Amino acid sequence: MSSSFGQVFRISTWGESHGTGVGVVIDGCPSLVPVTEEDIQRELDRRRPGQSDIVTPRREEDRAEILSGVLDGKTLGTPIAISVRNKDHRSSAYDEMARTYRPSHADYTYDAKYGIRAWAGGGRASARETIGRVAAGAVARAVLKQAFPDMEVVAWVDQVHHVKASVDWGAVTASAIESNIVRTADPSAAEAMIAAIKEARDSGNSLGGVVKCVVRGCPPGLGDPVFDKLDATLAHAMMSIPATKAFAVGSGFEAADMTGLEHNDPFYMQGCRVRTTTNHSGGIQGGISNGEDILMRIGFKPTATLMIDQQTVNRDGEDARLKGRGRHDACVLPRAVPIVEAMAWLCLCDHYLRQRCQRAL
Amino acid sequence: MSSSFGQVFRISTWGESHGTGVGVVIDGCPSLVPVTEEDIQRELDRRRPGQSDIVTPRREEDRAEILSGVLDGKTLGTPIAISVRNKDHRSSAYDEMARTYRPSHADYTYDAKYGIRAWAGGGRASARETIGRVAAGAVARAVLKQAFPDMEVVAWVDQVHHVKASVDWGAVTASAIESNIVRTADPSAAEAMIAAIKEARDSGNSLGGVVKCVVRGCPPGLGDPVFDKLDATLAHAMMSIPATKAFAVGSGFEAADMTGLEHNDPFYMQGCRVRTTTNHSGGIQGGISNGEDILMRIGFKPTATLMIDQQTVNRDGEDARLKGRGRHDACVLPRAVPIVEAMAWLCLCDHYLRQRCQRAL
Amino acid sequence: MSSSFGQVFRISTWGESHGTGVGVVIDGCPSLVPVTEEDIQRELDRRRPGQSDIVTPRREEDRAEILSGVLDGKTLGTPIAISVRNKDHRSSAYDEMARTYRPSHADYTYDAKYGIRAWAGGGRASARETIGRVAAGAVARAVLKQAFPDMEVVAWVDQVHHVKASVDWGAVTASAIESNIVRTADPSAAEAMIAAIKEARDSGNSLGGVVKCVVRGCPPGLGDPVFDKLDATLAHAMMSIPATKAFAVGSGFEAADMTGLEHNDPFYMQGCRVRTTTNHSGGIQGGISNGEDILMRIGFKPTATLMIDQQTVNRDGEDARLKGRGRHDACVLPRAVPIVEAMAWLCLCDHYLRQRCQRAL
Amino acid sequence: MSSSFGQVFRISTWGESHGTGVGVVIDGCPSLVPVTEEDIQRELDRRRPGQSDIVTPRREEDRAEILSGVLDGKTLGTPIAISVRNKDHRSSAYDEMARTYRPSHADYTYDAKYGIRAWAGGGRASARETIGRVAAGAVARAVLKQAFPDMEVVAWVDQVHHVKASVDWGAVTASAIESNIVRTADPSAAEAMIAAIKEARDSGNSLGGVVKCVVRGCPPGLGDPVFDKLDATLAHAMMSIPATKAFAVGSGFEAADMTGLEHNDPFYMQGCRVRTTTNHSGGIQGGISNGEDILMRIGFKPTATLMIDQQTVNRDGEDARLKGRGRHDACVLPRAVPIVEAMAWLCLCDHYLRQRCQRAL
Repeated sequence: MSSSFGQVFRISTWGESHGTGVGVVIDGCPSLVPVTEEDIQRELDRRRPGQSDIVTPRREEDRAEILSGVLDGKTLGTPIAISVRNKDHRSSAYDEMARTYRPSHADYTYDAKYGIRAWAGGGRASARETIGRVAAGAVARAVLKQAFPDMEVVAWVDQVHHVKASVDWGAVTASAIESNIVRTADPSAAEAMIAAIKEARDSGNSLGGVVKCVVRGCPPGLGDPVFDKLDATLAHAMMSIPATKAFAVGSGFEAADMTGLEHNDPFYMQGCRVRTTTNHSGGIQGGISNGEDILMRIGFKPTATLMIDQQTVNRDGEDARLKGRGRHDACVLPRAVPIVEAMAWLCLCDHYLRQRCQRAL
Repeated sequence: MSSSFGQVFRISTWGESHGTGVGVVIDGCPSLVPVTEEDIQRELDRRRPGQSDIVTPRREEDRAEILSGVLDGKTLGTPIAISVRNKDHRSSAYDEMARTYRPSHADYTYDAKYGIRAWAGGGRASARETIGRVAAGAVARAVLKQAFPDMEVVAWVDQVHHVKASVDWGAVTASAIESNIVRTADPSAAEAMIAAIKEARDSGNSLGGVVKCVVRGCPPGLGDPVFDKLDATLAHAMMSIPATKAFAVGSGFEAADMTGLEHNDPFYMQGCRVRTTTNHSGGIQGGISNGEDILMRIGFKPTATLMIDQQTVNRDGEDARLKGRGRHDACVLPRAVPIVEAMAWLCLCDHYLRQRCQRAL
Repeated sequence: MSSSFGQVFRISTWGESHGTGVGVVIDGCPSLVPVTEEDIQRELDRRRPGQSDIVTPRREEDRAEILSGVLDGKTLGTPIAISVRNKDHRSSAYDEMARTYRPSHADYTYDAKYGIRAWAGGGRASARETIGRVAAGAVARAVLKQAFPDMEVVAWVDQVHHVKASVDWGAVTASAIESNIVRTADPSAAEAMIAAIKEARDSGNSLGGVVKCVVRGCPPGLGDPVFDKLDATLAHAMMSIPATKAFAVGSGFEAADMTGLEHNDPFYMQGCRVRTTTNHSGGIQGGISNGEDILMRIGFKPTATLMIDQQTVNRDGEDARLKGRGRHDACVLPRAVPIVEAMAWLCLCDHYLRQRCQRAL
Repeated sequence: MSSSFGQVFRISTWGESHGTGVGVVIDGCPSLVPVTEEDIQRELDRRRPGQSDIVTPRREEDRAEILSGVLDGKTLGTPIAISVRNKDHRSSAYDEMARTYRPSHADYTYDAKYGIRAWAGGGRASARETIGRVAAGAVARAVLKQAFPDMEVVAWVDQVHHVKASVDWGAVTASAIESNIVRTADPSAAEAMIAAIKEARDSGNSLGGVVKCVVRGCPPGLGDPVFDKLDATLAHAMMSIPATKAFAVGSGFEAADMTGLEHNDPFYMQGCRVRTTTNHSGGIQGGISNGEDILMRIGFKPTATLMIDQQTVNRDGEDARLKGRGRHDACVLPRAVPIVEAMAWLCLCDHYLRQRCQRAL
């Protein structure tokens, strides 16, 4: 059950980094939703390796093929299978890692769990697994766009190491983010972020950072109270992205520094719509969307694979040294942006369909 | 599906604050695990209202009754139903809130979602719902203790508003935490935390804070990679607790400020056991436990219900004012500690049983 | 996961025969559905022991209490917990069965599975477990009746040992079935059935039979093709009732004797509604309802517990003899009727809500 | 959620008859199980069209490709994706059926459910969907064979229209069944069955029949009591196979004609093993396997698509006539045998892994 996500709109991803390919099966997508391969490809291109000179140079077109579930541009209601073939895999770069564990990577824990692992390219723990998420996210987006044309999900890189963007949640646009290769919403910070990534890469080191994400136009009423609160499932979704270490909604950890009177978001009527004057809640109250913008922050650690000699151990239980090889991102954040957006669409789509069971919207 | 959690060890909680009672059904508990009502009651007493003068004065014994699934102190493998009767409910204090929404509470969003809500005492959004979690957590703990006698989960209050504890993860003990009513691990901070809570309460205001939690003695190999990473399910679990706004594992958001070389945890052999010299990973790598301590931080917002006049709206779509009544915690953190521990036990127990399907431990 | 049923409208039953009681939690019921304890009690009274002189004389009022999820006669959208206390349990009658296995009962297999069992009264394998199903079925019925007021589910005893009813599917009414204590739809067969049951009971023996069930007014489009076909989930539901051995939909095993030309149900237009001239399909084609009556047959074996000396073995692996004691039904069919109906309502309600995710009805 | 089956060993099939191909993703398979493409291909070849002159002449090699989850002949514990490309599809034969509904096929109900369907070749309702089941069944078989080398599942055609096999459950062997193209276990009936199928085919008509299936070497303790009884999930599995109308375990509907004394299976000790002298229970008591052979019968209706002119309606709500075209089986039973076996392996594997959560075997 490790590779499935969602209750009603349920996706199952598959594939290893250096196997034949990767893909996803979506079970539970409603019928008659307009979906094309172009919708999917657009998002995959934003996630693709080799898209700029600050990401891994592995050359993959990541060409998506819809294998089932769509006819003449419309969903059939049957499972949608999407696959991408792997092309540029060079397993020889991983020979050493077959035996010796990269510090802070999943090499050791996969062996501890399964007693076996596809070591080449990180196997199942590779970021290539996220292709299926991004492809499925594009379908989830299509479902929601049909129901709520104004809904949008926008994520961006808000911090790379010591460089922080300075930008207002409300002012960020998708086009501004795509205008720079690091995908930050603050053009004045882009150059410094890019320079920091290049410097880390050139020294064999790596950097982490923070991605912010806003959902606009979400109707009130999404999210199941108690265990599957909207923010709890968003936390689950985001923390399932490789390299994430922290998640916050609305005020996040800063809520700890506030009193109730400072933190509470006063309600007011805007015509016949209930609004709040502030948004410390981040658009979610009691686990249910309230119609305000949903605000999230996700913390990413620096890439584990370094081109620097490090202390470690090997499969035979011996102390060892390892210096990484292969092609890796020195900073995953620019490519994490479409993954964060996809996970948000997947969560929201599942909750939207769940709400259709619960009560007519 | 809103009120169930877990895949194999699956719990379903039920009950409204001012209904007949609250409870939980556990489906999927292995047979022959020693469990008693005392094991459950011990944890419920730590969560109980009225336990000290910094928590809500509602008087509830919260006496747990095991209705099924246990015979002569051993689990039968059949569903374990546990219930607690509500006793001291005074719905009249909530008359006004039936019509007028408390800012930042779940009143408005429940109405938006369901078109109806049990307004008295917060209904299903009341913290009384967490009784079922704590009871089930005690059973999950018994399952894990049978398999791993040295395993322990310890949570404590690390921050209340501006008062922060200063304590090492490794040095914290369960008994130290229970030695003060605010449940902090730093005795030198306890008095200041208690004073801050009392001051907030006396002025009708409320405070938030941070709970830390450490899991010791967890075997390597728990957690499913990809979507149900151990940290992702812990994030889900913790963010489903009322009033939470943020979750971090290991280095958390601070990972963003580190380079890979600083962040990576070097491996070394300690006899035949793989260990790490640092623990920025927080005991989880690639979503799977690595045998080191699991380290978490959870951010809580201040209680929404205030005894202060606030701007809001009502069910009829009119602007309104509301000053809270009823009995509430001015700071939920002291009572959140056993809830955080319970959610950790529930997550770990589910992943332990899932791993038994996947491979013999 | 043994005791839960349904995907969206999901029930979890709990309770042992001689424990404190039995009950059910329903998670996923829509809000604003009218439900009362009387709706539930009416069905429980049809399932109750002691209701007539051809069923077990155990005296239980089986009084249902709604513990949560309903306010002022309307569902809240939150979990609905319903419980019934056990009253008239006499465990001493089971002393011998604690050690010696009843042939064809679940005594041995529970021990083989769990290494422990609640032997008194059959424990979890007792028919008392079905109280939760019948109570939940009454709620499922309320959900469907709100959406489709003309929908009805009618089951009856069609055969008891060698006595068979002779009655047309279309002519059967709920009131006719309730007019006789054996719950057959053919008044001319009732007396012979009752006599057969009494004779078996008096000789310490038992009888099986067949229950038929028809669903009328089901809209087209319910049922998920492939694995969760409507007939496949109905088969699952019915075969989960204790003592069932066979399930058939529409033509059933007789389909084997027909050619395609004989078996196919020709379509025709009745106004703007698609109808079929025959109904060998039993209202389901390709796993999806077609709007015709859904026709099912369920085969029940004779009760396993006999008041006759039989060859068997005991817990210590020794050959043994056993003559049953305690109070048992000599024929379960009269009381199985409301259980069959409940399982049908549960299946249909779950598929109805699933279809609301899939496409607006 | 329509296309997934299993709780722990969970499969999701995808694909339409005339799309790019069909396939399956298996999530939850344990690691270190030996699996090869040959294991899968052997079963697919038994299900393949064109394998003999009594099945559909569509020419498909049905060549399985394992896309992920297996490395060097061993499972990785990660999802196993298997796909088969469609080759010989001739959609033109279906032009008429795009508009006009075949009686007793899924054409109308798919339209009623989804408002759209892939009409060519039956789309998702085509028997090609079962390729994924058979492929996954081969993997499930490998898991069980590793744990229980003597376990076997053997199915055969027991009846075609009026021709019935006469054969003892215990005497049937896999090789005997494969010795004739109709896959019956009674060589003396094979010729008559084949003749009946050819005659029906030549007249444009079709035939149904009965498949029997026996599971040998199943350990006691599999199956979850209450809803997921082993026989209930087997019923679900078998009734999800296209064209099935009835399911029976052990005595089946004949149980209705027996008294308890006749039906009960007396226990006796065979060394230290608990055995029964008869097997009316069909190897399952209280929903749990008892170690005896599991005996099932599955009833199939005649193929719906006929080359004979029939009365029907069309998408526009008009009465119409239709004579089938395309390539179809006049009797699905010979090819249903490996599908029945696959569904049995899938059920048993899921219950085996579930039992590993519940208690060590």
